[in-house]
Amino acid sequence: MYAPLRPDPSLPPVRINLYSDTQTRPSPAMREAMLGAEVGDEQLGLDPSVNALCERVAAMLGKEAAMFLPSGAMCNSVAILTHCRPGDEIIAHETAHIIEAEGGAPWALAGARVLGLRGARGMFSADDLRAALTMPSRYAAPQVLLEIEQTANLGGGTIWPLATLRDLVGIARAAGMATHMDGARLMNAVVASGISAAAYAAPFDTVWIDFTKGLGAPLGAVLAGSADLIDRAWRWKQRLGGALRQAGICAAACLYALDHNVDRLAEDHANARDLAAGLAAIGGLNVEPPETNLVYVDVAASGRTPGDWAAALRAQGIMVSVMGATRLRLCTHLDVTGTDIIETIAAFHNLA
Amino acid sequence: MYAPLRPDPSLPPVRINLYSDTQTRPSPAMREAMLGAEVGDEQLGLDPSVNALCERVAAMLGKEAAMFLPSGAMCNSVAILTHCRPGDEIIAHETAHIIEAEGGAPWALAGARVLGLRGARGMFSADDLRAALTMPSRYAAPQVLLEIEQTANLGGGTIWPLATLRDLVGIARAAGMATHMDGARLMNAVVASGISAAAYAAPFDTVWIDFTKGLGAPLGAVLAGSADLIDRAWRWKQRLGGALRQAGICAAACLYALDHNVDRLAEDHANARDLAAGLAAIGGLNVEPPETNLVYVDVAASGRTPGDWAAALRAQGIMVSVMGATRLRLCTHLDVTGTDIIETIAAFHNLA
Amino acid sequence: MYAPLRPDPSLPPVRINLYSDTQTRPSPAMREAMLGAEVGDEQLGLDPSVNALCERVAAMLGKEAAMFLPSGAMCNSVAILTHCRPGDEIIAHETAHIIEAEGGAPWALAGARVLGLRGARGMFSADDLRAALTMPSRYAAPQVLLEIEQTANLGGGTIWPLATLRDLVGIARAAGMATHMDGARLMNAVVASGISAAAYAAPFDTVWIDFTKGLGAPLGAVLAGSADLIDRAWRWKQRLGGALRQAGICAAACLYALDHNVDRLAEDHANARDLAAGLAAIGGLNVEPPETNLVYVDVAASGRTPGDWAAALRAQGIMVSVMGATRLRLCTHLDVTGTDIIETIAAFHNLA
Amino acid sequence: MYAPLRPDPSLPPVRINLYSDTQTRPSPAMREAMLGAEVGDEQLGLDPSVNALCERVAAMLGKEAAMFLPSGAMCNSVAILTHCRPGDEIIAHETAHIIEAEGGAPWALAGARVLGLRGARGMFSADDLRAALTMPSRYAAPQVLLEIEQTANLGGGTIWPLATLRDLVGIARAAGMATHMDGARLMNAVVASGISAAAYAAPFDTVWIDFTKGLGAPLGAVLAGSADLIDRAWRWKQRLGGALRQAGICAAACLYALDHNVDRLAEDHANARDLAAGLAAIGGLNVEPPETNLVYVDVAASGRTPGDWAAALRAQGIMVSVMGATRLRLCTHLDVTGTDIIETIAAFHNLA
Repeated sequence: MYAPLRPDPSLPPVRINLYSDTQTRPSPAMREAMLGAEVGDEQLGLDPSVNALCERVAAMLGKEAAMFLPSGAMCNSVAILTHCRPGDEIIAHETAHIIEAEGGAPWALAGARVLGLRGARGMFSADDLRAALTMPSRYAAPQVLLEIEQTANLGGGTIWPLATLRDLVGIARAAGMATHMDGARLMNAVVASGISAAAYAAPFDTVWIDFTKGLGAPLGAVLAGSADLIDRAWRWKQRLGGALRQAGICAAACLYALDHNVDRLAEDHANARDLAAGLAAIGGLNVEPPETNLVYVDVAASGRTPGDWAAALRAQGIMVSVMGATRLRLCTHLDVTGTDIIETIAAFHNLA
Repeated sequence: MYAPLRPDPSLPPVRINLYSDTQTRPSPAMREAMLGAEVGDEQLGLDPSVNALCERVAAMLGKEAAMFLPSGAMCNSVAILTHCRPGDEIIAHETAHIIEAEGGAPWALAGARVLGLRGARGMFSADDLRAALTMPSRYAAPQVLLEIEQTANLGGGTIWPLATLRDLVGIARAAGMATHMDGARLMNAVVASGISAAAYAAPFDTVWIDFTKGLGAPLGAVLAGSADLIDRAWRWKQRLGGALRQAGICAAACLYALDHNVDRLAEDHANARDLAAGLAAIGGLNVEPPETNLVYVDVAASGRTPGDWAAALRAQGIMVSVMGATRLRLCTHLDVTGTDIIETIAAFHNLA
Repeated sequence: MYAPLRPDPSLPPVRINLYSDTQTRPSPAMREAMLGAEVGDEQLGLDPSVNALCERVAAMLGKEAAMFLPSGAMCNSVAILTHCRPGDEIIAHETAHIIEAEGGAPWALAGARVLGLRGARGMFSADDLRAALTMPSRYAAPQVLLEIEQTANLGGGTIWPLATLRDLVGIARAAGMATHMDGARLMNAVVASGISAAAYAAPFDTVWIDFTKGLGAPLGAVLAGSADLIDRAWRWKQRLGGALRQAGICAAACLYALDHNVDRLAEDHANARDLAAGLAAIGGLNVEPPETNLVYVDVAASGRTPGDWAAALRAQGIMVSVMGATRLRLCTHLDVTGTDIIETIAAFHNLA
Repeated sequence: MYAPLRPDPSLPPVRINLYSDTQTRPSPAMREAMLGAEVGDEQLGLDPSVNALCERVAAMLGKEAAMFLPSGAMCNSVAILTHCRPGDEIIAHETAHIIEAEGGAPWALAGARVLGLRGARGMFSADDLRAALTMPSRYAAPQVLLEIEQTANLGGGTIWPLATLRDLVGIARAAGMATHMDGARLMNAVVASGISAAAYAAPFDTVWIDFTKGLGAPLGAVLAGSADLIDRAWRWKQRLGGALRQAGICAAACLYALDHNVDRLAEDHANARDLAAGLAAIGGLNVEPPETNLVYVDVAASGRTPGDWAAALRAQGIMVSVMGATRLRLCTHLDVTGTDIIETIAAFHNLA
């Protein structure tokens, strides 16, 4: 029931993979960088490539220290376990990845509940946050952590404005809360907005970026924060099984990604805009205007379910995601070209 | 910060205690019943009064077995720990006691999140529940338990209709979920509706009633369910420190309460209606029509905060609860008389 | 499997109950004290009898503050949850009650392992503790709490010497550990040794005494510590379901016990010595010299199992405990008279 | 305090690394295999290299299914979380890696205590296990899992005999327990004994092998078991952050290791024997006869601490491990040559 599906040989190969930017594959040049990586025992602090990556990401995010982890989900869990004690409450948007897509890790591992706030496009306001705060008492769970996902995936790949982030963090701090940014697609926000990663990260105690999405590396994410917090977080890295050995092989791909795959996210965003424009012209499709590389399409008015659409596209070698009862998600990334966008729009036209 | 306040000697004694039905004190006759109670070692199964109480409550609720616990909060926790594994999700109303008033016990102890559904008067519909169900996957937390609070305290002491309960449990069962009723004030619903406790309890795997609220006993609650479930629940009773010794002293009070304090809940309901009618006539007070023994009054239009109202009443020896930013709660119970109601209405008039 | 047994009507009534001092029943005078108890809402801090009890126990143990809880097991769990975080390690004797008899509560609730040290008569030495300490590292669990059970039940009701306790706590503090005393039978140690409860408690951060054992109350235990710690412990009292209502009914019995049932523990100790002397004269029985009210008898040399002995005695109305593969435990308390001791010795003679 | 050390530039480079087989670095040929790896999205089941590796390991271990994880520690945690519920007890040797070296993960994450049994050379007997079993009751933690570490690292790299394993598992099963093998160095046992991995694995419900030790891959471990168990284990892989993306890059190194680095473990074992023989001739060193690739040396009789020895060797570019108060550990692996062994023996001679 929980195991993943295996490839279905009755289907044609996937030609255009708009399922997720997690589908990006390491390029030949990235693989060459891995081939030559200098490595050591990561959990003893002796992997030079991992050390170089952590220093670089910490500097980029304006934090004192950083740690390498095999996945973004583990960055969230390590941060939550470091910030929270059993019985605590985390405040996040109700569509946050830590609620929707990590199998219940915050409560399974940390004994912390996530209170999900409502709000359009995956975001909530300062007033929403204020209204969610409870008086400290023995009867209420302590509210200890504000969590923000930048960009907001299920909100449409939307970008939390810097001013909103600063307001929210100010309210959280005044209430004695710590703050954490799930920066799985932070670099998309950076490239789209022209605001630096350090500026977005500055208000937050912890922040991480993922290298397996638009940045195109095969695995790895880096969590940053104060030196003291990262020191304490090592306990949880170890306990969760995220202390690795010659991880420099993978860190080399991440370093390559920082050099070559950040600025080019602008192409993905342009492709997303083109895709959205093309689909918006088709009757029955309600397209949310993309801010980054995610295009959400509500198909309710088309008379078909998202599953129907996805299956019909898949039969033509185009893979998209079904998101809930009425939405499709199409994600652009470095393995999706402008031609792919044109073909995809055409395929939708033919099916409409 | 978390410890309770001590009595404030600068305040007059409390003459009329509308703060909560938890304030009820054991009557002389109830104390006499305790004086003569036959007792034994409860955790060895050798306390005859506890055994008699458990058998009687199990029969009344139509369940195979029951266990005595020192508090209703522990009934909820024992049930949740027996039904859930770490990482699971419980569905309840967003104002449920297990969310709002147990210090985060479901996630602190059981690693389970409670998803809070919205809905007027503390209740939600079959459609609300259906909309909250997620597809089973590795990404989503397993949804394993539906929890209902009868009556819905923060909803206004409202009574979930039996048909609604049956519908909700049917949907939950179809989704593979277990079901639990927090029956802290179930007997109020029984007396007010004329529907038997067994009928309300029938759809649920576990259900408990509290003896320290309107029933007037000093401590104790009884959790009921199938024999197998209650057997497994004993592990958690033991682990939570709820396995007791000569608890028959307290069980005797509960048995007395079943004999003498159930039918008289009708008086509390009549008092609540009288109180509501009296207050509704005062400008600036919006009174929610009471279904049982809880009277909620929104004072937003009065130009004063609930805290102001509560302090002014307290200065006259009348104790009420502040509930959130705009509401007062007044609770009738066996230590509140018809005369107290008249005096309370008068006090509001004088302050308005 | 986990539920307790019910009384077996095929057996004669229990005439002499040496099973445990938890079997003590509230005396008529104690019940009278309960009948007149002044009570209030305990979890709001408004129960005068509970408040008086807590103040008295805090003073007796030389601590700033105390809280009432329904059981000694909950005192252990509340203290452990307040001292520890998930992943921590507690050091205790391998026969400690928190390891052997609380269903795994320290790890089930607090995510803390208990490392069990070996040592004769339920005790270990300063050298044993030093040898068990590990170097702090990411690989080792943090060792955060030293736990001592006074008296050591499975060790034979033995008394940890004050000098040993001071040495152990000194070592623990130097290693950055907190310290907790399970004082379920601390008052037995006090009466037997002539050393005050405050002196035994002084080295420890938290300490509790049980009222349901030799002190003869029906339920209740009191946990003491610094004001700050007890304040934080209230969160866990609440979460575990240990926040009560008119608990003063029970606290009154505890206050009565402090007045009337402490000094008389000397009788139980004298009875235990008489019982041990009588049984030691019987071939096949190896009797551990009792220090307090527990008499352990190894029956390995008798050719019969402890279960055989217990059943044969039970058939004559005498109830004793089976402890492991070769030992019986006989416990004296306020419901066991000198005549009962003589009869019990005679019964063993007849069976030998 | 918990973060790893960084390289100390005042020390000479490490010429001979006997610290651990975790220090092995991917060879050029292994890196070439990674360069050409076919990859996909691992957590969707679409990485062909990971799928191939899992099928191959499952077949080699005689199990229905397997899953790839980033570390061996995560294999232990995923298995424990799948087998256990909070409050359970695991039985293992007191020197087991899950007790000593995973930061308390079993209790931090799973709420399970590990009871450590004593026994020479890291092993215990059927009688030891029988003696550790408790009667099921509400008072005792449920004993649900037997855990065996093959080879026993802290025992000296010793091999649990197959007959012993079968006996132990038989006892465990009769007691209703599941069984788990930590096979971090199982392949060393296989090569040294000539017994197949499938034979060692057969009695166990779950078993894993590590690729980052003697097998020389940079990261990765594979956990195997029944199809149903591995399916359920996916939840915990996901929650712990062990669901990866293009992990085939790393799986390719593991596949290479199975082809090229298994049989050659015999060289490591020969080197270990040579090293042991050479050191045994030096006064003051008590060498435990190695069974596989770990050489433990007790230096108590040398008049120097293990730390002194390690520092003196490190100053000559030779890195060894300190293990407790009196022992050094020297580990042979594919980056240690016969010449290195001779040089190491000479260095000890010069220091003695």
